Amino acid sequence: MATMNAPTKVAQTNAATKSPQIRVSRRSLAYWRVTIDNPPINVMGPEMVQQFQEVINALETDEQVRVVVFESAVDDYFLNHSDFTAKLEDLTAMPAGPTGLPPWPDFLVRLTHLPVASIALIRGRATGNGSEITLACDMSFASREKTIISQWEVGVGMVAGGGPMARLPELIGRNRALEVLLSSEDISADQAEAYGYINRALPDADLDSFVEALATRIAKFDKWAADGARVPQAGGCRKSAGILRGPN
Amino acid sequence: MATMNAPTKVAQTNAATKSPQIRVSRRSLAYWRVTIDNPPINVMGPEMVQQFQEVINALETDEQVRVVVFESAVDDYFLNHSDFTAKLEDLTAMPAGPTGLPPWPDFLVRLTHLPVASIALIRGRATGNGSEITLACDMSFASREKTIISQWEVGVGMVAGGGPMARLPELIGRNRALEVLLSSEDISADQAEAYGYINRALPDADLDSFVEALATRIAKFDKWAADGARVPQAGGCRKSAGILRGPN
Amino acid sequence: MATMNAPTKVAQTNAATKSPQIRVSRRSLAYWRVTIDNPPINVMGPEMVQQFQEVINALETDEQVRVVVFESAVDDYFLNHSDFTAKLEDLTAMPAGPTGLPPWPDFLVRLTHLPVASIALIRGRATGNGSEITLACDMSFASREKTIISQWEVGVGMVAGGGPMARLPELIGRNRALEVLLSSEDISADQAEAYGYINRALPDADLDSFVEALATRIAKFDKWAADGARVPQAGGCRKSAGILRGPN
Repeated sequence: MATMNAPTKVAQTNAATKSPQIRVSRRSLAYWRVTIDNPPINVMGPEMVQQFQEVINALETDEQVRVVVFESAVDDYFLNHSDFTAKLEDLTAMPAGPTGLPPWPDFLVRLTHLPVASIALIRGRATGNGSEITLACDMSFASREKTIISQWEVGVGMVAGGGPMARLPELIGRNRALEVLLSSEDISADQAEAYGYINRALPDADLDSFVEALATRIAKFDKWAADGARVPQAGGCRKSAGILRGPN
Repeated sequence: MATMNAPTKVAQTNAATKSPQIRVSRRSLAYWRVTIDNPPINVMGPEMVQQFQEVINALETDEQVRVVVFESAVDDYFLNHSDFTAKLEDLTAMPAGPTGLPPWPDFLVRLTHLPVASIALIRGRATGNGSEITLACDMSFASREKTIISQWEVGVGMVAGGGPMARLPELIGRNRALEVLLSSEDISADQAEAYGYINRALPDADLDSFVEALATRIAKFDKWAADGARVPQAGGCRKSAGILRGPN
Repeated sequence: MATMNAPTKVAQTNAATKSPQIRVSRRSLAYWRVTIDNPPINVMGPEMVQQFQEVINALETDEQVRVVVFESAVDDYFLNHSDFTAKLEDLTAMPAGPTGLPPWPDFLVRLTHLPVASIALIRGRATGNGSEITLACDMSFASREKTIISQWEVGVGMVAGGGPMARLPELIGRNRALEVLLSSEDISADQAEAYGYINRALPDADLDSFVEALATRIAKFDKWAADGARVPQAGGCRKSAGILRGPN
């Protein structure tokens, strides 16, 4: 419905070497869309990680943006596991981000702390990295019919690197978090909504208009008020209690 | 069904100057009702804030009370936003409460820490202050048909002053808390129950008898046992873990 | 369906003096079952507490076990309140466990911290101790038709000794935890699932096969990956945040 603007400089930087896997478009000065587009199944390799770094750099620098929506242009896949055909050293050679963490968890932590409302619009598989960006966003809304979400790492002998062990218990409690992590099972949108893993599951036909209305609404609000209303992430109990006790 | 007793001294203090906006009645020594009654729409101005201070003073001082229920006498409104027609200086001139906080957040924090079971019986709009007292109570039960709850502050360029940024994530997780706060949308009783924002939504016809039975039941239990069973509020993870480790 | 192995040495130790109230069977080296069997109503007296100590000692010592399922062999009762006909001094005379806590909370804390996936398979009443072991396990699945769960202590003038004041708010939020604890009401499997008190309620006919499939699946996964995926218990916000910040 909304027309995509031309790719920004952020994406064009990457286009020099290869077709960009992430496109940033500005629906308005205050409302950005980030579109993940690495067909056929939206795996995440070193190039995409680098492009996520550029996206978060741009979001942190911009003074107008108030809302950012993450979505996929690839049918049936929101964001998938890592690209196991890529050279591992291309990933491990990337420098740490400003938080001191490797680039992917660095992106996720900065996204969570960003003074911009972040929304995951999920349609299709959100496996591993796709679940992790969902948890790092402020809010998530998913197609009831087309979404599958999972942290599948334990099932293949790995440990998730993007922090779901920290973020999931905050949302769904320790015991359901352990079920998600230790079972490594695919989870439907309905089950994810019942657990509080995502904010809401919506009929696929309604999902786009719901997110569009919400993002447009938030984009109109005063930025300082929205910033003041932000709540803390994992480990934030103390920070949030501080609100009740006055500055500390 | 139950007969309201005559207003207590707490309320009568205010009646000297103006009709009291909050009435306290004792259904028994152990079971009090606090009725919010500022027609036509239960806004909260400086006088009501002052009366909430007197209510919490009375609750803290009394040695018999074990349960307190907050309800409204005004159709369609449980407790509404602040009275924007009041003089702001009448509010800002009020001295801080015993916690060192301004009177309204002072009331809320003392209510949460009170060794008395507190129950919000919600019928009608619970906007801003009404949501904040709901979150500060120990439990909340709402009319399925007649309840709307919201933190609407961001939508009008303000920041909520009664602590929902701290309390909501404890109940419904960071991501749904951010949706409630940043969207500033009206939320139905069904949605609030699904999120865990309130304890339960009940058919309007059953709400009063449900709360009456629960309050009467708790009022009969040993006070020391009920005190021992209380759980901590925001920031209380450490305190609660302490229970497992023995006194500290 | 699955055949119980002969009781292990753990249980046989107790069999010398009296029929064991807890049986441990190994379905494989990696997958153990612990069966609570103290008819007619599965109350917990000093002997059972001692046997739980032996079970946790065995689980901590074994290097093969990855999954343990707790179940009952007694119709209509998963695990019940304490045996009030037992001599209190038989319980109070028991030495503290390795955590420094009395034997029952010692067992619960060690179970939670055990690097083994623990699952409560609940059919029948889970009152007091039965609720506490449910909360201490990593996951819980209950018969929709046959389960009743409660913390009934406040209703009889006692304070629960196994930590539900700490564990319940982590799972279901402070306000629903207070309802469970202060009301002391029986809670159905459906209500417990809606609150997140248990992971899931399942049709009674499906419960055994669901748990068997999940336990068998987890037992096959690499142990180091499952350990790495574990999330912290009450008070663990800081530990979990640490994951995002790197080692500390």
